Amino acid sequence: MAKYKIVIDLLGSDKGPEEILKGAALSLEAFPELSLILVGPEDLIKASNLPLDRVEIINCDKTVTNYDNSVDAFYKATDVSIFKALEATAKSDAIGMINAGNTGAMLVGCIKYLLTEKRTRPCLCAVMPTVTKSFTCLVDTGASIDCGPHQLVEFAHLGSEFMKKLLGIESPRVGLLSNGSEPTKGNKLVKEAHHLLAEEEGINFVGNIEGNNALSGQCEVLVAEGFAGNQVLKNSEGMAMNLITEIVKYGKKTGKEAEVMEIVGYLMQRFDFESLGAGIVLGIRKPVMKCRGSSGAKAIKNAVKMMINLSEEKSLYEDR
Amino acid sequence: MAKYKIVIDLLGSDKGPEEILKGAALSLEAFPELSLILVGPEDLIKASNLPLDRVEIINCDKTVTNYDNSVDAFYKATDVSIFKALEATAKSDAIGMINAGNTGAMLVGCIKYLLTEKRTRPCLCAVMPTVTKSFTCLVDTGASIDCGPHQLVEFAHLGSEFMKKLLGIESPRVGLLSNGSEPTKGNKLVKEAHHLLAEEEGINFVGNIEGNNALSGQCEVLVAEGFAGNQVLKNSEGMAMNLITEIVKYGKKTGKEAEVMEIVGYLMQRFDFESLGAGIVLGIRKPVMKCRGSSGAKAIKNAVKMMINLSEEKSLYEDR
Repeated sequence: MAKYKIVIDLLGSDKGPEEILKGAALSLEAFPELSLILVGPEDLIKASNLPLDRVEIINCDKTVTNYDNSVDAFYKATDVSIFKALEATAKSDAIGMINAGNTGAMLVGCIKYLLTEKRTRPCLCAVMPTVTKSFTCLVDTGASIDCGPHQLVEFAHLGSEFMKKLLGIESPRVGLLSNGSEPTKGNKLVKEAHHLLAEEEGINFVGNIEGNNALSGQCEVLVAEGFAGNQVLKNSEGMAMNLITEIVKYGKKTGKEAEVMEIVGYLMQRFDFESLGAGIVLGIRKPVMKCRGSSGAKAIKNAVKMMINLSEEKSLYEDR
Repeated sequence: MAKYKIVIDLLGSDKGPEEILKGAALSLEAFPELSLILVGPEDLIKASNLPLDRVEIINCDKTVTNYDNSVDAFYKATDVSIFKALEATAKSDAIGMINAGNTGAMLVGCIKYLLTEKRTRPCLCAVMPTVTKSFTCLVDTGASIDCGPHQLVEFAHLGSEFMKKLLGIESPRVGLLSNGSEPTKGNKLVKEAHHLLAEEEGINFVGNIEGNNALSGQCEVLVAEGFAGNQVLKNSEGMAMNLITEIVKYGKKTGKEAEVMEIVGYLMQRFDFESLGAGIVLGIRKPVMKCRGSSGAKAIKNAVKMMINLSEEKSLYEDR
């Protein structure tokens, strides 16, 4: 009997629905109590070797690409897979939804189908591994661009609530991304948000955090406006890959490939951004996860695992 | 006979004037045709073992700290070392100035003493090593926060001119830091700047660059508003240090310290942000370099070397 039902949108990713289907298969294999609602081409799903008794199919072959305007999609394209998937999430007993398509369309869909009674604007966070044993939730990573200081305070609350659950801790430390640690540093938005956060009840505000300390484990929640947060998220991943690439080059140059690959394996595991389920939409009724467009099957399985853990309130530390 | 004269401000750095003095000593040793104007406590300089026949002293013991307001300093504190150093740069035949103090005060001083006839607002860039053999000049890294789209176009010109000299190339590729590669991605500022840059004459615009590709060698000039640019600069350095720290931990854990330190040495040399002279002020009459506050003597010597190379128009590639 299925204990957890999760909706997966098969369309819109870089590697095509076949790869996401592989992720669905891996997930069903790994989690016996899982059942899925798959949104995508019915023929393709039926032709796969998935255990179809644990799969519900919503047939759909329309998607929103990264070149489409996601706001237009809201009005014109109600029959696209991301909206069908979010509608199914809202109307069923599914615990959440996973996709690897257009982020804008997903957020528009979250507003359409999954707003809370407070009607908070959803934001997108990423749980990132730090150099300590802890994790930092970076919020927002690109959903709320050009937002105001009160939204940054809202991000602090949403991130704190989320990390309380995810880490099983009482009072997550909240930092504010800035260009200097002193309260006088920042752009206009950050200076205003700093004042508000320092006064805000229920927030354990530890002050400004600079970009070099984003993953130093000084806070469990790192608040940022979406454009700057996106830079930190992508730059962190890019730099980790740059260094790993250089190490591989070094191994080839010096003929020490075997030793080097051991270190690479260790680093890939320590800084495996994909294992933590990529982006998570906060501030809506059920968790929605956005894997990156280039996600492989393993990333989908990891997202499924994280969603199950979230619904169980199982601390991330148990896996560390 | 001294061929190059450089001004160095000894005050305002985290490690104190003794460390910057050591950097001055290293530089005089390494470059026989160098002479220095040192701004700092006369007693300290005279008590050092510097070749005083190649040193001019401007006695000063007042500085601007990171907690001081740099704009206030402009009006109130004309007798601080950074202003004396910039005044000496403007009035002497020095080829440029090096310091490791308060960035804001330095920029205010550049406006006061070194504006060009066009009276362009100065910006701060950093030359960063990429995964290819090339370099990327990130401009602005934190001097121009909350600026407008036309300023980003100005940064593109200043960065292009600088990289033409530094790399000895005809037409540096200019990228615009954004949260997506498509022209429709970005905050309001970036979208406007994208349009302007696409139309701008004399700029080899290659479009938006995401944070993960900041150091992938896709452009020689990466244009960013100062707050976002600061995130990329500091996050890149922070992540490089995070990975290097993890590799050292791995070496200790596995008893492979010797092998690991070889790799660390290689990475430190490939991603040595300090060796490229830290921040450089563009858009003023003479080059002014800002080493980070925590700079050691070696960083000062590297800045001196880069400034000499700049004045000789010697391509950076010659050292690579």
